[in-house]
Formats: sequence, structure tokens, C-alpha cells
Amino acid sequence: MRNFKLTLAYDGTGLVGWQRQASGTSVQGLLEDACARLAKAPVAVAGAGRTDAGVHATGQVASAAFHTALDVHTLRRALNAHLPSAVRVWRVEEADPDFHARFARHRKTYEYRILNGPVADPFRDRYAWHVPQRLSATAMSDAAASLVGTHDFAAFQSAGSEAATTVRTVESSRLSVQSISDEAEEHDAAVTWDGCWLVYRIAGTGFLRHMVRTITGTLVEIGATRADPEIITTLLATRSRADAGPTAPAHGLCLRGVEYF
Amino acid sequence: MRNFKLTLAYDGTGLVGWQRQASGTSVQGLLEDACARLAKAPVAVAGAGRTDAGVHATGQVASAAFHTALDVHTLRRALNAHLPSAVRVWRVEEADPDFHARFARHRKTYEYRILNGPVADPFRDRYAWHVPQRLSATAMSDAAASLVGTHDFAAFQSAGSEAATTVRTVESSRLSVQSISDEAEEHDAAVTWDGCWLVYRIAGTGFLRHMVRTITGTLVEIGATRADPEIITTLLATRSRADAGPTAPAHGLCLRGVEYF
Repeated sequence: MRNFKLTLAYDGTGLVGWQRQASGTSVQGLLEDACARLAKAPVAVAGAGRTDAGVHATGQVASAAFHTALDVHTLRRALNAHLPSAVRVWRVEEADPDFHARFARHRKTYEYRILNGPVADPFRDRYAWHVPQRLSATAMSDAAASLVGTHDFAAFQSAGSEAATTVRTVESSRLSVQSISDEAEEHDAAVTWDGCWLVYRIAGTGFLRHMVRTITGTLVEIGATRADPEIITTLLATRSRADAGPTAPAHGLCLRGVEYF
Repeated sequence: MRNFKLTLAYDGTGLVGWQRQASGTSVQGLLEDACARLAKAPVAVAGAGRTDAGVHATGQVASAAFHTALDVHTLRRALNAHLPSAVRVWRVEEADPDFHARFARHRKTYEYRILNGPVADPFRDRYAWHVPQRLSATAMSDAAASLVGTHDFAAFQSAGSEAATTVRTVESSRLSVQSISDEAEEHDAAVTWDGCWLVYRIAGTGFLRHMVRTITGTLVEIGATRADPEIITTLLATRSRADAGPTAPAHGLCLRGVEYF
């Protein structure tokens, strides 16, 4: 039995998320089926992040132990041949026998992309939340920074979650502003406001269910001046989900990478 | 009657191309219908580049004359409201009465993206040609440079075209190499070859039908060492379509911009 570490990307559009479910296509299910075809036996695949339905990944990490005589490069090719084009294995590595993608200590980085401008982008509609109302990036940045540290994030988890503790450590939380495209930049001088990308990146050792999307939803409320930047500090103290912003749509979120240490 | 210059982007997947046709969804047809709804009368829309089925645009320019009382910002919003999300109007400008997007002197820039690596990219599958065999960027760059100038491009036009002359002027023709992604870069040290983006840009005052795609197909033959870099010079002299490379797939091509002068 060999143990493998897989690094993969997927377009979450139309998938029910990472976790295998009774119905619908899951990333875990696709990977387990692909591994099973090579191993000629059932294979269990564990993922670092259990991404929700519609959430994307460019750097998800999974582990799987099974028998195969293939070298890692041939294995990558064989797995990709058995997967739909929406899921691609970037890298296959031989791992220690006890490596487990979910339980090994790691840091995950999520990215949430907001297209903040009057016109949507036909090429990135599926990978970003389009917010036409102009948002204050400064207010959002300040609020984002105040999330760093070890806090009780109960206000930012979805209702009905069953995590043993809602205390988590956020190592970095930063909003950056990017121009929307080469073309748009050339037009900036002529039109009043063509908009920008607001790219929110958050890294930490663990996340509650819907935590990044609820944080993003709250940041957008702050950017739209419907909420005060200080609401973050208040929410970390009161733990009140009802006072946080709405859950941002799944399709703007992407699991960018997982780092083990 | 006011005359408008429209700058637009579209995802060509599933469209029959720019030109209105008896069946299927065309960009021209969608725009003419959207303008007609605002003008409450039929409107003719002319495009700078008659992109083929499956070809994308981030900077197509169109012209249309019609009656409306709307200012250009409201007009942009109204047009986008009447268009599917795959087509977005970036910009609406008031144009001189005699401005015609196709007949006014202009320079078009096309971009052809090749993902040259062992693994496809689920997020860009629809916007790039995936070539797994490793290509020589140096040979392709040299060959690309030899296309610059005024030449007879008969060897690079599709069979059955009816252009009056096949002489065209290519102002720039350049291949650049880009890393495939942040994530992939981190992995580069570990795997033998993760690949790269080969981005081919060509600009000129006029193009023959399928010219950019046939040039790209020929460059890939050169990159794969199935053809000599000097074949370009030979083809410009012999004008023999049969000796050029295959037509590269439509979905890797994008009309990046149109500049009037």
C-alpha cells in the first residue's frame, strides 16, 4: 500500500462540493472512483478542505492510500484520464504512510473575488461575485485586518453547524484592489467608473462552515456603508450570527492552497 | 439619429460567431435585437472583426446608428440588461455620424492562448488550446517575428475564401511565455515539467479568414519540430495553403482590441 498526496484544481460550478453525497457529483466521489479504477479496489480519499457546492479550488490537497505499480507521473496522467475536465490533478507525490490531508497540521488559504463595477465580465462570471454598487475598499481593508488573531468566530459560522469549538486562528486577512483588465484600464480615463476587482485573501489553520463567505458578506456590508467597520470587533465579542452580513455566494470563493508544516 | 461606438466583450463558446446567420445565436444578432428594443425600430450593427464561431473577444468594437434619448451610461446599462451574460458592452461612446466600425481605418489585435503542459486547466479550458507535447518557444518566436511586414498571406487563409487580395500588413507578431499559475510556479521545482502559457499576439490593419488560426497552427508545427522555422518565409513566397499547418481550434482565439486612427 502506498500513500499519495494529490494537489488538485476544480471548477466547482455544477458540483455538490468536496464531500461525497447521496446524489450529485462531488470531487471526493470523482477522485475515489478514479483511484478505485486504478487500484481495482475501493479507495478512500480525504481532502484538506471540505469545500461547499459551487466553491472552486486551485490548490486543494487530498490524500489516498492504495496499491499501484505506476510512478507518480504516470499516475497523474491516469487519474486525469479518469476525471472530467472540470477536475485536474496538478501533482501526485509519494507521502509518508501516516499523512492525512485533513488531520495533518496545515494552513489553508482561501480567496474570494468580487467584481465591483457596473458591468459584469463574461469570462469570470462563474468565478466572482458581481457587486455593481461602488464599495469602499479602504473601509473593507481596515475591517479585514481586524480579523487577524485567535478569536471566537461563532458569529461567522452558518446556522446549525456542529463544530466542537468556534475558536479559530486567522493568520492573515487582506483585501487587495486590482484593475479589471488591460482593456478596461485604457478606458478608465473616459468613463466615470469602470470598477475594479476586490480580492480578499484569508489564511488560517482552520475555518468554520461558511466562515469565509460570511466574513466576505460582512465586508461587503461595510464597503457599502450599510455597516460600520467596527462591527467586526463587536461580532467577535457578541458571537451573534444575526448581526453579521449575509453569506456571500459560493461561486466567488476558491481554495487557493494548503500548506503542511 | 445618433451614431454610437460600442466596445464589447463576449465569451464565444456556443455562439455562431459575430455575424448574424440563418440559425444559431450570433453577437451581431444579439446586439441588433438589443438596440432595436431601445430604438423601437430595426437597427443595423457593424463589427470591426467578423470573429468565427467559438472565437472570443475582450475588445470588439461595433457601430450602430439609432434614435434614443438615453445618455451613454444609461444606454450601456440598458443594452447589457437586454443581452445574455456571455456578451457585455464595456463602453458606449457618441461617434461621428460617418463612423463605421468595419470600414473606418483601424488596427486589430488578436491573441491566441496555448496551454503547453501535461495537465489542462479547468478554469481556462474554454479559452485556450491545450497542447500536451512540449513546444520550442524559441523556434516559434523566431518564426512569429518573420511574419511582420506586408506580404501575400494566401497560404494562411481558409480554402474557399473570396478576398479580393490576399496581401495584408502585419504590424506586430510576437510570442510570449507566461508561467501557468501561482500554484504551479511553486511546484516547478518538484516536477519535471509543469508547462507554461504560450501567448501569441498579432496586430495588423486587416486579416484573412482563419489567418490567425492558420498561423498559430503553423507555429505549433514549428514548435513541435514537425516543421522548420523557415517554412514561414517559404509559405509567404509559394502561397501554398497545403503546406501550412492545420487551423488551430477557435476557442483559443480572442479579439483583444481595435484601435482607430
